[in-house]
This record gives sequence, structure tokens and C-alpha cells, in this order.
Amino acid sequence: MVTSELEQIVAGIGEAFLARLGSGAASGGCGGGGGKTCGSCCGSNAHSCVHKTREIVAAGADRVSSCHGVRKLEPGIAKLIDHTLLKPDATRDDIRRLCAEARTYGFASVCLNSYWVPLAARELAGTGVKVCTVAGFPLGACATSVKVAEAEQAVRDGAQEVDMVINVGALRSGDLNTVKDDIQVVAEACHRHGAILKVILETALLDNMQKAVACTLAKMANADFVKTSTGFGPAGATAEDVALMRKVVGPEMGVKAAGGIRTLEDLKKMTAAGATRIGASASVKIVEAAAA
Amino acid sequence: MVTSELEQIVAGIGEAFLARLGSGAASGGCGGGGGKTCGSCCGSNAHSCVHKTREIVAAGADRVSSCHGVRKLEPGIAKLIDHTLLKPDATRDDIRRLCAEARTYGFASVCLNSYWVPLAARELAGTGVKVCTVAGFPLGACATSVKVAEAEQAVRDGAQEVDMVINVGALRSGDLNTVKDDIQVVAEACHRHGAILKVILETALLDNMQKAVACTLAKMANADFVKTSTGFGPAGATAEDVALMRKVVGPEMGVKAAGGIRTLEDLKKMTAAGATRIGASASVKIVEAAAA
Repeated sequence: MVTSELEQIVAGIGEAFLARLGSGAASGGCGGGGGKTCGSCCGSNAHSCVHKTREIVAAGADRVSSCHGVRKLEPGIAKLIDHTLLKPDATRDDIRRLCAEARTYGFASVCLNSYWVPLAARELAGTGVKVCTVAGFPLGACATSVKVAEAEQAVRDGAQEVDMVINVGALRSGDLNTVKDDIQVVAEACHRHGAILKVILETALLDNMQKAVACTLAKMANADFVKTSTGFGPAGATAEDVALMRKVVGPEMGVKAAGGIRTLEDLKKMTAAGATRIGASASVKIVEAAAA
Repeated sequence: MVTSELEQIVAGIGEAFLARLGSGAASGGCGGGGGKTCGSCCGSNAHSCVHKTREIVAAGADRVSSCHGVRKLEPGIAKLIDHTLLKPDATRDDIRRLCAEARTYGFASVCLNSYWVPLAARELAGTGVKVCTVAGFPLGACATSVKVAEAEQAVRDGAQEVDMVINVGALRSGDLNTVKDDIQVVAEACHRHGAILKVILETALLDNMQKAVACTLAKMANADFVKTSTGFGPAGATAEDVALMRKVVGPEMGVKAAGGIRTLEDLKKMTAAGATRIGASASVKIVEAAAA
């Protein structure tokens, strides 16, 4: 695709998005303009379509693949959570503890730096808890080949999910093809090996228009999820950003909220806004609060 | 080398280091125990050897290769500075401005994320200003293969210097061979292509003993410099850390101080403590202050 075509598509999406923002559609937890049909998956009334998705998520869905149903429906809040430890000084014992907690509580995955993937894959073999890692993290400003190398190494080592950071500087420079291609090549590498790709926007560095464009590019590049934040940026997830991202990507992609989610209430705010996955370090505290 | 041998060597170095720390040798700007000979390069009295190095640095040396002389001696503070912009949201225009400033003031290098290396290499061709980039940055917790891929891609793209982050978690887990091998493989990749390697310790995450061990491993792995900080950690360079690192690596390796160096006074403190290179974003302000 040539630059001008891509720019036209993104500009069109941006204008449509801004028009809907202007009508107040993005301000609440429920996306979809009233009466508009859902063009992306079922053609039904988009309002009820998104509502149905939200109900499924509220019931504890791990992941929602389309508004006609779910690929997998598991009860409980734990299955929404990527149990996360990305601090550079985490030790082998810290990683083992993270994996033990994930086994005990049945979290969706452990999310850790790629050096630790082989250890986590051994610790979690046969448990149903996935291994999630990161690529180009947390700056996203490395060459695409580096993100691909990191994703491929991780998948070879046993990761089933990869969270990559977009090239924020390229996006802010208007190099939309660079951003899209960067995501697409990593997505292809992940999918080739049966892994999924989440795309981190680092929303705190973007304005609303840039967030909408980034979501559009991630969708065009066949990513599986968009994700708000690295947890290392100037701010974390907000319900407003989650609602915006859900609105742009539609119901068939995952939205992961991460960064600063420390309580059960934080988690509920994010799922109400459209998040289907939560990245958290305080995961044990959150599920214990839910059980109480 | 088997683990036990490496651990014995490092333990010996650590004990010797701690003994010298106990004698107060590491507290000041001048390293080397009085009367001890310098075993690493010239066998002369280590005190006068380090003094000579300091004098050369104070005169504006870019890099000191041995206590018998310097590979390159250029006047002025600018040649000590890696003019740095590693923020993930830096745009193409920001990078062009960085390169223009580096040309104007004659900084040692520009230090930027690896996505921007091709642009910087074009902007700085024929100017004598080098292109420095980062690998495994800023967490250092990715697989070694990823750091190698990043270094090799960067060198192919025109980088002459690579600043990699050590595997802090492996160091804190006692996996010394992992830390050494991680550095050594990247050093070999850099040297094969004529580039140099600086090894970032992220000192704020380490105690003094761990800093000494990390310096030892970097030296054993044939790195060219040790460097204090990423600028993204909980704290930046301190004169105490620079003195400690200079003491451990001896006079023949470079020591780069980075993180929080914002004034001419900060820079002078670091060079007095043994730094031969400074990473700074406020570089223009610093050299303007020196000129005034």
C-alpha cells in the first residue's frame, strides 16, 4: 500500500472518529452510535452488539472473538489478568513466585521480560496459564528487526503472547506506514508460531487523535489486542482511553488496560469501559478482594 | 570457563575491592591504593598512573586507552559528551535538531534509539561526530540474542558505538556467567564491525558489591566502557559510583557517567571522579556555560 492510500484511509477514520467524539459517543462506557450497525463482524445494531460484548466480559470472559459469541468463556476475574512483573531487577526467585501465584489463582498469563520466558515456560507447563512477554519494551523506538527477533526468540522459548510497543516517535512524525509495517511484521512472526500480539500504544504520550490512528493501524496490521500503557511511561491506563480504543477497534479485537491498575475497582472501571484483559502487578490483592 | 572458576575470580575481586573500600580508597576522586602497582597496563605506581589519566581527562581527552598515553586527544568539553535523546516520543525533527547541534558543537556522538540510527548516520556523515545507540535498553532483561540483533542492526545502519544494559536480574540472582556471556557476545558483535561497546550497570538498582562485580564481568567480557545509568532508572550517575567503577576497571577502560548530568559542575564532578565520557541531554547548555 502506498503512503497516500494509507494516509487517506487513516484520515477518513480519524474524521469519522472525531465526528463521533463530537457527538459524545466516546465519553461513556458503551461504544457504538445508537442505531448504527456493526459493520465489522455481524451487521447487527452496534449498540446492542457492544452491549452484548460487555455483558460477556462482565461475566468473566477471558477473550471475546466476535459479537456472535466467545472463543472461550471462563468464570472469574483471575482469567482477565496478565499477572505482571517487568521490573529490570526482578530475580529468578521473584519470577518463580510470580509463576506460583499464577498457578494458584489461575491468571490468564504471567507477563515478564523475555530473558525469563524459558524459566516461566518450564514453571507453567501443563497449567493452562500462558506465558506473555514484551518486545521493543518499553520505548518502542528500536528497529523493526529487533522487535521481530525478540518476538521470535520468545515464541521459540515458550511464549504464547507478545506485547510490543509501537514506534511512538514515528507516529508523532507522521510516518504511518512505518508504524503499521512495524506492527504487521511482528504480528506475522507471532501468528506464524501460534502466538498472539498485543500492541501497546503508550497512551500518555499521544493525543486522542494519535490514539485513534494507532488503534486503526494496529487493526489494519492484524494485531490481536491494543493495550494502553507499558507501566513505565508518564501515566497508565484510564477508562477514557480504554473506551476510545474499544470504539476504534470495534468488538472483535481485544483491549488490554495496563499501568496503575491496583484495585478491584480500577479493574471494574476498565472492563466497564471495554477492556477484555488487564495487566496488573497487584493481581493477587485484586482477586482476593473479589473473593471477599 | 565453568561457573565455579568465574565465581572464585569474582569473589576474589570482590574481597579485594571491599578491603580497599575499607581503607577509604574509594571515597575520593583519586583511585589506586598508595604504593600499589598498576597490574593491568603499565606496572607503574598505580596512584601516579591514575593521576596521569585524570590529568589527561581534565585537559579534555576524548578517550584514554592506557596510562602510557592516549589514542586520541582533543581539546574541549564537547568531545567528552554523548549528546543524548532517548525519549520514546522523539520525532524525526527532534533527531535532526540533535544532529545539527552535535555538528555545531562537535560532540563526541549523538546517542539515540536504534530506529533513528540510519537517519543520524546520514545527518552526520563526514562530520567526525559518531552515532551511538542502545541495546536491550533500558531494562536489559531481554534475551542475549535480542541485544546482539539490535547491536548488529545498528552497526549495519551506521552506529559506531553501542550502549547495552546488563542483565540486572541475572546479576541479582547470582548468575554471573549469564551476565558475562551476555556482554561478551554483544562485545564480539560490535568489535567484529569496528564499533565499541559501553556496558550500562544501572547503578541505582545495585549495591556497591554488585557494582564491583558488574564492572569486573564487563572487563572480563572485553567491553570498552562501563556506564553508570540509563537515565530511565530510579536515579542517575553519582561521583561515588564513577570513582568505584574507575577503581574496579582500572585506567585502560572508559567510564561513562550518565543520568541527571545537567550542568557544567555536574560534568566536572564526574570527570574528577574518573569519568572519560558524559551522557547528557543538556549538552548545549553545558558547553555554552564552559565557553562563558
